[in-house]
Amino acid sequence: MKLQNQHHRTIWVDEQNPEQVCTFDQRLFPFQIEILQLRTLEDAAFAIEDMQVRGAPLIGATAAYGLYLAGLAAVKTSNPSAFMSQAADRLRRTRPTAVDLFHCIQRVVQALQGKDDPNQIVQTALATAQAIADESAEQCRMIGVHGLPLIEAIAARKPGQVINVLTHCNAGWLACIDHGTATAPIYAAHDLGLPIHVWVDETRPRNQGGKITAFELLEHGVPHTIITDNAGGHLMQHGLVDLVIVGTDRTTRQGDAANKIGTYLKALAAKDNGVPFYVALPSSTLDLNIRDGVKEIPIETRSEDEVKYVWGWKDGQIQQVLTTPAASPAANYGFDVTPARLITGLITERGVCAASEEGILGLGF
Amino acid sequence: MKLQNQHHRTIWVDEQNPEQVCTFDQRLFPFQIEILQLRTLEDAAFAIEDMQVRGAPLIGATAAYGLYLAGLAAVKTSNPSAFMSQAADRLRRTRPTAVDLFHCIQRVVQALQGKDDPNQIVQTALATAQAIADESAEQCRMIGVHGLPLIEAIAARKPGQVINVLTHCNAGWLACIDHGTATAPIYAAHDLGLPIHVWVDETRPRNQGGKITAFELLEHGVPHTIITDNAGGHLMQHGLVDLVIVGTDRTTRQGDAANKIGTYLKALAAKDNGVPFYVALPSSTLDLNIRDGVKEIPIETRSEDEVKYVWGWKDGQIQQVLTTPAASPAANYGFDVTPARLITGLITERGVCAASEEGILGLGF
Repeated sequence: MKLQNQHHRTIWVDEQNPEQVCTFDQRLFPFQIEILQLRTLEDAAFAIEDMQVRGAPLIGATAAYGLYLAGLAAVKTSNPSAFMSQAADRLRRTRPTAVDLFHCIQRVVQALQGKDDPNQIVQTALATAQAIADESAEQCRMIGVHGLPLIEAIAARKPGQVINVLTHCNAGWLACIDHGTATAPIYAAHDLGLPIHVWVDETRPRNQGGKITAFELLEHGVPHTIITDNAGGHLMQHGLVDLVIVGTDRTTRQGDAANKIGTYLKALAAKDNGVPFYVALPSSTLDLNIRDGVKEIPIETRSEDEVKYVWGWKDGQIQQVLTTPAASPAANYGFDVTPARLITGLITERGVCAASEEGILGLGF
Repeated sequence: MKLQNQHHRTIWVDEQNPEQVCTFDQRLFPFQIEILQLRTLEDAAFAIEDMQVRGAPLIGATAAYGLYLAGLAAVKTSNPSAFMSQAADRLRRTRPTAVDLFHCIQRVVQALQGKDDPNQIVQTALATAQAIADESAEQCRMIGVHGLPLIEAIAARKPGQVINVLTHCNAGWLACIDHGTATAPIYAAHDLGLPIHVWVDETRPRNQGGKITAFELLEHGVPHTIITDNAGGHLMQHGLVDLVIVGTDRTTRQGDAANKIGTYLKALAAKDNGVPFYVALPSSTLDLNIRDGVKEIPIETRSEDEVKYVWGWKDGQIQQVLTTPAASPAANYGFDVTPARLITGLITERGVCAASEEGILGLGF
């Protein structure tokens, strides 16, 4: 998608210097755009650990490219295979709970199996990292292809009028390689010239909506308006939302979807007002081993400081302010589960289906 | 209620110097506690204009006490009645849309009608201001008396266990004279020794929950936890909320209640999870002239900067940080309407009733 009027992915091999991988320092978004040059395994590991990169698909791809950078160094060692094995361990330790990360590292490790020739190691690691990034981008593009008709149908019902889509958190291209998940149909519609406008939930406590989603829509030129997480119900009551599309971190066999805390409240409001509510997901986030999401998906609790402090931009730097009594406790639940009964459909890379076992299995998952 | 371990109202005549009225500078809450000494009409008018005082009942009482302070100065003028009339006009201009403010000013003006004797003016203005404050405190106390049995019933069902009440925004004593509206049953239960715990929605964009409600509960010693506005649905899904009590700015003849934006989303979650959802209100906020709240109550939109910037405490002062792309637009709806069908009951100073015309008229309103 576009950033500073140029098409970008979130991670790429530097054209000038192919021994260098480029990505954005996302800690500075939306206030500054700074390209990071990753030159070593350690650069890649640090970028993941320090959250310079974020979003499961991007973290996974960064680790894969990190193994390519490790390969460049392995060439100069006496035992490249052992060096690569240590590099994989180093990357696995960066974010201990990220499943995508492990999958991507494992895929490169497997591709390297039996390869001892240094150049072969470098070429294989690079080709696998590129394949991981390409496939992720393509999956997201296909979510856009399959989600687009939902928006076109609304456009057909109200020709010439603005189509209002509400989204929560950031399931955008900056968390992926390109297109995003919930944003893929939005970008597809916008790029086709449909008059789309996005209500962006700011998404407390970390404000990934107000910070990242708004930023990527702004840079790509998609009309949008930031709202508090409290506002969506009122907008739906007054006919100001045509469609809700959100992402998901995990979707169960019966179609319950865990996503950023607050998603469930928007699903309730959508149901109460007859607004279609869709969840966009790459099939890698399907978990067919569990059924009842509310009962079975463990919800991460995070630091209370994320609730008590808000960080933002002031005087040319990122600063944080305390917004509560210092002595008051706060609780910080990261996700909630939207029951399948509130979900109109799932948008996957294979097509749109009902949020049900029948729907999911019907697409061959 | 308690503040710094002493019982306080939000506004009172200084015992040491009865020609001085005291209140708190609420702009500094929760970070600093500073008592303001209002000595003149202009002090009172400025306190209202500059939002040093907030909450409809407190604003109204401050204006009434402002007329008492004006009376003290009127004594020294050649035409006390004309002076008082100008004073009332000055106060009316402070917050042009606050209905309570006008009512309170009008009540003092009417009490002063036909009184020319300077001492009589002072005594009448003071007595009327005191009566306004006392009646407001008593109304809130009675909301507590009538709401308490709802909490006692929960306590009886789970003896010895914590009773979890969720509230949104600040309908607390700091917006009133004492007790508050939504908080009155909570304080009543706590003071009786019931093990009550309050989930405090931070209430973006102005964070009156995280800032003011948390602060007053903390100062009174009521256990509480601040949560993002996104979290309440998740808590209700997991049985962590026994009761929701919120305030209201306007309740219609059929029982629809306008309250701070986001209230409707909590009402939906309460309904979906079988959690009782009550609205606490002094009857002065009933509007029997309208029925359909969603259609008929105009919703104020406020500055987008309240959404884009967050203010808090840093380095010993109040500062604000930008939390969004500077160029992204934001929308700021102040209130939403919760339809009566989602409200379990209304808690008024006369008793608890169904959120319906029958219920409201049944209490003799």
